[in-house]
Amino acid sequence: MDLPSLALRWDGTRVLILDQSRLPHEERWLEGSDPADMVGHIRSLRVRGAPLIGVAAAFSLAALARTGADAATLAAAADRLRASRPTAVNLMVAVDRMRPVFATGIDGVVAEAEAIAAEDVALCERIAEAGATLIDDGEGVLHHCNTGALATAGVGTALGILRRAWEGGKRLHVWVDETRPLLQGGRLTAWELGRLGVPHTLVTDSMAALVLRDGRARRVLVGADRIARNGDFANKVGTYGLAVLARAHGADFHCAAPSSTVDRACPDGGAIPIEERDADEVRGWGPTRWAPADAPTWNPAFDVTPASLVTSYVLDTGVIDASRVREGGI
Amino acid sequence: MDLPSLALRWDGTRVLILDQSRLPHEERWLEGSDPADMVGHIRSLRVRGAPLIGVAAAFSLAALARTGADAATLAAAADRLRASRPTAVNLMVAVDRMRPVFATGIDGVVAEAEAIAAEDVALCERIAEAGATLIDDGEGVLHHCNTGALATAGVGTALGILRRAWEGGKRLHVWVDETRPLLQGGRLTAWELGRLGVPHTLVTDSMAALVLRDGRARRVLVGADRIARNGDFANKVGTYGLAVLARAHGADFHCAAPSSTVDRACPDGGAIPIEERDADEVRGWGPTRWAPADAPTWNPAFDVTPASLVTSYVLDTGVIDASRVREGGI
Repeated sequence: MDLPSLALRWDGTRVLILDQSRLPHEERWLEGSDPADMVGHIRSLRVRGAPLIGVAAAFSLAALARTGADAATLAAAADRLRASRPTAVNLMVAVDRMRPVFATGIDGVVAEAEAIAAEDVALCERIAEAGATLIDDGEGVLHHCNTGALATAGVGTALGILRRAWEGGKRLHVWVDETRPLLQGGRLTAWELGRLGVPHTLVTDSMAALVLRDGRARRVLVGADRIARNGDFANKVGTYGLAVLARAHGADFHCAAPSSTVDRACPDGGAIPIEERDADEVRGWGPTRWAPADAPTWNPAFDVTPASLVTSYVLDTGVIDASRVREGGI
Repeated sequence: MDLPSLALRWDGTRVLILDQSRLPHEERWLEGSDPADMVGHIRSLRVRGAPLIGVAAAFSLAALARTGADAATLAAAADRLRASRPTAVNLMVAVDRMRPVFATGIDGVVAEAEAIAAEDVALCERIAEAGATLIDDGEGVLHHCNTGALATAGVGTALGILRRAWEGGKRLHVWVDETRPLLQGGRLTAWELGRLGVPHTLVTDSMAALVLRDGRARRVLVGADRIARNGDFANKVGTYGLAVLARAHGADFHCAAPSSTVDRACPDGGAIPIEERDADEVRGWGPTRWAPADAPTWNPAFDVTPASLVTSYVLDTGVIDASRVREGGI
């Protein structure tokens, strides 16, 4: 199956993921055909990006089905995959969608996983098409984390918008914040935009306020890991601060995601569980430690941005103005 | 001469600085008695902190005088020291204060350097005494960069306030932001507070908004590299964003500095030159690179916070309410 993703391959039997913990220095592909391996890849962020991990988990179940695993074995693997990251709803949606086909035989399981992937590709294209209408020619846009072809089976969400706008002839400049602690902006988005030839500048998270104050960017574009019914949404830590800064500087703030990210069972941001990760992520990066080994830390991996700070949501169903969401829910 | 500083030693002939680029992993002392070496230490941030580099530069000139250097040699060394960092006014003030004594003989040069150091120690104590009155028992305070006994010849400015408040019996909790790109918070402030036993938690810069939103900190305390006549001030990059976030969350925002940081010749923040540093600082840390080697970057080392976002200034002359500054200048 031919996927636009830069980080996922499926040959009908085996699933491979690009080890994103090694980028940009090394492009190493890892097999995730055994769901136990895929759980490890997801937990350690070797595969990351809310839409991508859902598709990767589905392919891992399809690969397991190819080995002749029975429905009970598939269901147990599905449970472990589903629990590998607590915040991203796409993973749960993808895994739960696979369950009914476990008893239908190998071809049924494979076909469902491929359908999930194909839909993600199509969703990205529709998000990009809708979002590109928001981008003015010649403007600067501030982007957080990584939301591109490394985060989805397709061209991406927020970054897919910028890519398609650029390819469509709009001159734009992307301000890439590095996104501590795991540096998805500095490692992945800078690599991806460099590869695509889209003009960009990398800054630390602490410089984002200056980028907005000076008008270098007049718009902030981010993804989402889960959107509550009232429009509050969880995304990579740092998103909330950018939303406050955007409001203070009169910049527009957009959240781009497939509609599967909307969790209608979740009334508001307060109901979204926030994963806390290992202290060493704050004390350094990778094997490098710059803080004292016993420094007390706090490390929420996500934060919740209230709907009141959002200008609009860019979904595969189109651009939804936040005022409409505040009235009737998303 | 016995100094409270954790980073500077002067035995009457030689000046030693603690290599802050090696902390917290290694405590290595370097000689700076040759001004050419001291210029290198200052440029590379092995010695850093606006008040400390002024004192260190003065001692370096005193050490050069001890070798029998004539007034012209001292003046040439003073010029090179003065130009080693463009933003911090303390360095220029200290060096310019040394100039008139170059022709007075060795003892006069040494005495002036020691007087500059003794004054910095006393200034820190007065700042700490004034500022400690602002701290409520049991509260959380967000702190940026490093402003302690590693940044001055004395106990520090913003961090000296917190240290003296803690030693005076106030329970407090310091939220330490890591302060990318050079990580003075994660490397130095976390080390210093751990050594002093002051309760603290290290977070990334991108988490500061959450610390304020949740009320974990209701006050932000920072230092200053230069304060303009109208109260605008330059400080480590990231300060401006914290000031905007503090205002948005109803938190008080204080700037602590010796009055030598006030530059009355500078009308407002727009007149303060901002040093831009090497791109590799944004692409990684130390020898570690996580971003693409050719990633375009922007790396302002400082930013300017407008007086309108400041609650009060804590100087050695006392706490000055920002409303008073807005009326008549600082």
